[in-house]
Order: sequence, then structure tokens, then C-alpha cells
Amino acid sequence: MSKKLVVSVANLEDRHIAAIAAAARAHGYAVCFCSGEEEALSQAADAEIIFSASPALAGNAPALRWLCTPFAGVNAFLDEGVFASPDAVLTHSSGAYGVTIAEHVVMVTLEMLRREPEYRAIVARREWQRGLPVRSIRNNRITLLGTGDIGQETAIRLRAFGPASLTGVNRSGSNPRNLFDAVTKQTGLDAVLPETDILVISLPATPETFRMLDARRLNLLPDGALIVNVGRGAVIDEAALERELRTDRLQAALDVFETEPLPADCPLWDCPNLLITPHTAGNMTLPYTRDRIVSLFLEDFENYCAGRPLARRVDLKKGY
Amino acid sequence: MSKKLVVSVANLEDRHIAAIAAAARAHGYAVCFCSGEEEALSQAADAEIIFSASPALAGNAPALRWLCTPFAGVNAFLDEGVFASPDAVLTHSSGAYGVTIAEHVVMVTLEMLRREPEYRAIVARREWQRGLPVRSIRNNRITLLGTGDIGQETAIRLRAFGPASLTGVNRSGSNPRNLFDAVTKQTGLDAVLPETDILVISLPATPETFRMLDARRLNLLPDGALIVNVGRGAVIDEAALERELRTDRLQAALDVFETEPLPADCPLWDCPNLLITPHTAGNMTLPYTRDRIVSLFLEDFENYCAGRPLARRVDLKKGY
Repeated sequence: MSKKLVVSVANLEDRHIAAIAAAARAHGYAVCFCSGEEEALSQAADAEIIFSASPALAGNAPALRWLCTPFAGVNAFLDEGVFASPDAVLTHSSGAYGVTIAEHVVMVTLEMLRREPEYRAIVARREWQRGLPVRSIRNNRITLLGTGDIGQETAIRLRAFGPASLTGVNRSGSNPRNLFDAVTKQTGLDAVLPETDILVISLPATPETFRMLDARRLNLLPDGALIVNVGRGAVIDEAALERELRTDRLQAALDVFETEPLPADCPLWDCPNLLITPHTAGNMTLPYTRDRIVSLFLEDFENYCAGRPLARRVDLKKGY
Repeated sequence: MSKKLVVSVANLEDRHIAAIAAAARAHGYAVCFCSGEEEALSQAADAEIIFSASPALAGNAPALRWLCTPFAGVNAFLDEGVFASPDAVLTHSSGAYGVTIAEHVVMVTLEMLRREPEYRAIVARREWQRGLPVRSIRNNRITLLGTGDIGQETAIRLRAFGPASLTGVNRSGSNPRNLFDAVTKQTGLDAVLPETDILVISLPATPETFRMLDARRLNLLPDGALIVNVGRGAVIDEAALERELRTDRLQAALDVFETEPLPADCPLWDCPNLLITPHTAGNMTLPYTRDRIVSLFLEDFENYCAGRPLARRVDLKKGY
């Protein structure tokens, strides 16, 4: 066993590096902080632990026991043959993004309800026009499809706006921290959609969630409903959604897409009733997010060194 | 006494008209719903009560006893000679706008912290760029200058984002509904500003608040502080603020300006670090706001008919 930890994570600050170095030293690990992919690839060859979002490193680390990705999504690691080592386990960092993604959800929800894209265009023309009918979060029926860290942090913030209801939808039907007025199992989704004014989606991409929001289910939403997707793009049938947006029946704010970057000729770019953000909801540019990523890694590093189960271990077969 | 009520308020819905008509009938008042200023002016001549934002009606109503404006601000009624009747009292509707203005404050705060104006421009160019450093409401020190309906509804919503502190500033130093971590009297404002990351202003325009945020006080704010003004424009020295914005020292989201509409040649239109909205935070296009305006009027109509003091009476000398 080489007792070597390779770290290749963008934007780490001095305090993060110091904390990781101290933990490694305490447990007798050599630690190598890499500034680029090439350097990391050469260091990976004898790594026991890797902290990086790069699947290429996993393919170049035959002695690997554990890889922690600083991202929430793990799709890049699920294909057969990604890991050169048969013993490697994978952990994710999904608990780090709830705060920043929840702020994004509230922002784009209010932008769509309050006609902010149109007001931005009015102000850009230096016009003083103020009569567009707006809507409020207050008294709206909100459904959160996905009740993990993102869904929970979003529920906490939306609650303060006085919604008519906050309904969670998840696999188990359990109500985390009692943050939701009710929680429905995913098998009951069809019954919830007709009673949903605002639908917030934070599901990962798995075979089970692929195009869960297809044409039939989109059609169950009432006129004027708003869809906010901050999970993965493949959860929505984009062509079906585009039809609903172009007929002014639904509105959407999408941060994720089935193909990213969104191709230059994608018809969604000029689709009405749609606010596009380039997968910015949960990126790592918020210092708080980076703090969380490092502290979650260090928590599992302590688990690893003590021989305990890792808290955020991914089931490579299920994909989450 | 003519026992005549004249109503000239834009965007009233059928249910509002029915409710006002029923209350008038119950108390033996004739009620006249006017669809335009001209019609309202001719009806005002023998009105005892007027429900309208138009100072011209006050000048044409010698028998007037009470005017209720559906707006929160009352400046238009403060000049000498606005009221033709010496006995007329004025009430405002400021309790109707807190919900919609608070949603606006949260929206523009997140837009500025999360670089949304820049991301709108990136998306308009169909570019996929996602690395702009963003900030969070979480752990920020927030000061609310003005703790009335707007300040309170804003505090309730911002609390859910986990700020480091919510400090109120008002005349009395009292803490309404205990919504704030601390409340400072306006005389202590200078001590609060250096400890403020986000400053939300919801003050009315009065002689006392005129340019309260002058060059000296703006300079007390720390680098990078964000100012959100949804009160009245005259509270800030706009020229001094513009200098702070152009040197990248401060950021601002302004919904109100000393001169409105903002003149086409105003240098603020192309000022960096500034999000302009054309006085849209508290307009009457939200159905909930119209509901509240009507119910606040009806509450004071019952007070009036019972000979009780009016709940939202304006002191014409103080201006609030």
C-alpha cells in the first residue's frame, strides 16, 4: 500500500490545502496537490486515494482504493472500465451544493414569476415601463421532485415566502427533517403534477429518472406552471417541453440539459418562456461550497482511515 | 353630508368591486367606480370619501372628509393646497406592498450576488461560460434601513437564507415581531454601516430621510457591499453612489430614483455594478397586492363609519 493521496480540485484556497495536508500528515499519508490534469495523471499511478472529478485519473490508478469526486453528479464514473482498480470505491460530494443551488432556484423562480427577463430588455432600451402582470411565490403549490440536500435547502428558503404547500416527491416517501407538508413516492407523481404551480427538479441522471418528465407527464401540469430543473437534463424530454413552452402553456428555468454545452444550433436558445443558465446553479465558484466539499472529503477521510464505512459511497450499479 | 364614495383605482377585479359596493351599501353610502381621471374629477365635487392615488381629485373635492391612496408613498399629497377641503384626512396603503417588494428584494439581491446580469449577457450570445465567482446571502451581515411592512417581510424571507445577522434601523429602536437580531436607532446608523454587507433601504421620502445615504455614509460601507433601494430615490445621493459604483467599490440594485422616470440622458443607465428596475418592486400588478389594498381600505372604511381613528392615517406635517 502506497499511502499516497492525490488531490486535483480547482479553486482550492490556502486554508483548504492546509486542512487536507494536516489530515494526511496525521494519518501518515503523503499528499500531492496537482495543478493540472497532466501532472495529476502522472501522480495517479501509485495513488491509494484520489480527490478529483476526473475519470481519467481513475483509469490510471491501478492501486486506487478510494476516489472522492468534488461534484454531486457521478455519471462520468459509471461506465464499465472507468476504474483501473477492481477494489476502488467512489464517493460523491452532493451535500456541498444545496445552499448555492437553493439560492439559484429561488432567484430564477422569482425572475420568471416577476417577468425579470422582459424587464431586463426594457431597461436595456432605457425605457420606463412597469405594468407587466407579475406573480408571487406566496400561495403557490410547490412540488420538489428530489428531497436530498438540494430539495431540503430549497424547501427551507421557499417556506419563508408563504407557499400554499410544499410537497416532496422521492423514492421512499419519507419526509426529511419534516421540511415538507407532505411527501409522495415517485410512483404517485402523476397525481401530484396537476396540483403543482411550481415544480423544482433536483434528480440525478439514472436509468430510472431518464425522461421521467415526458410529454404525457408535462401535460398533467396546469396551465402556467413553472418548471425549474437543477438536477440533470435527461430527466426532462426537452423536445416535449419545448412544445409546451412555445405554446405559452408552461414556463421553465433550466440550468441543465441533456447535451452540455448546449449546442449552438439548439432550438432552446431562442425558445420563449425559458430562462437558460449554463449549468451555474451548483458550480464551485462559491467559497462556501468549496468549504463544504473539503469538509465532506475530510469527514470521509477520517472514516476511511478508521476503517468505517464511507458516508457518501456511490452504488456503482444504481448510479447514486 | 353627501354620503358618497368615489373609487378610482386601476386594475380592480370584480371581487374587489363587489366587496367595496357591499360595504358601501351596508353603511348607506352611494359608491361611484370611475374608469378614468376625467370621470373621477367630475364625480369628486360632492364626494365625502375618495379611494384614489390622484392628488387632482383631492383638489376638486371641497366636501372631502377622507382620502385613501392605494399607494404606499404619500409625497404627492404633502404640498400645501393639495386638499380643497380643510377637514380632509389622508390614509396610505403601505401595508399592502410588503410581500411583493420583499420578493423583489430577494430576487435582485441574488441576481447581483450571483452575477446574473453578466450571465444573461453570456446566454444572449449563446455562450457556455460558467466560471464567474459568485457570492451567497449565507453568512452575510444584512442591515434593513426601515423596519415597516417591507422591512419585516424582507427580514422573514432573508432569515431563511442563513445570514450572519439581520440588523434593523428605525426611529424608535424597537424590534417589530422580534424579526431582527438587533435594532439600532437611526442616530446610530454610522456605527452599523461599516458592519454591513447588504443594505436594504425601504424608507419614505421625508425631509429627515433626504440624502440620508450621502457620500460620507456611503464611504462607511465596506468594499463590495450591496445596496438595495426599494423606498424612495431621494434617500440616496445618486451622484455619490454612482462614483462608488464606477470604481467597483460598491454594488447596487435601485428600483427608485430621485427623478422618475429616469431621464434618458441619466448617466446611471450605463453605470457598472448597478441593476436598474423601473419602480416595479411594489406596483399593483400582483393580484395579492390588490387584494390587500382593498382589504386595508375596507378595514379603515369600517373604522370611519364607526367613528374610530383610521389605522393608516398620515400626519401631513411629518409626511408619513
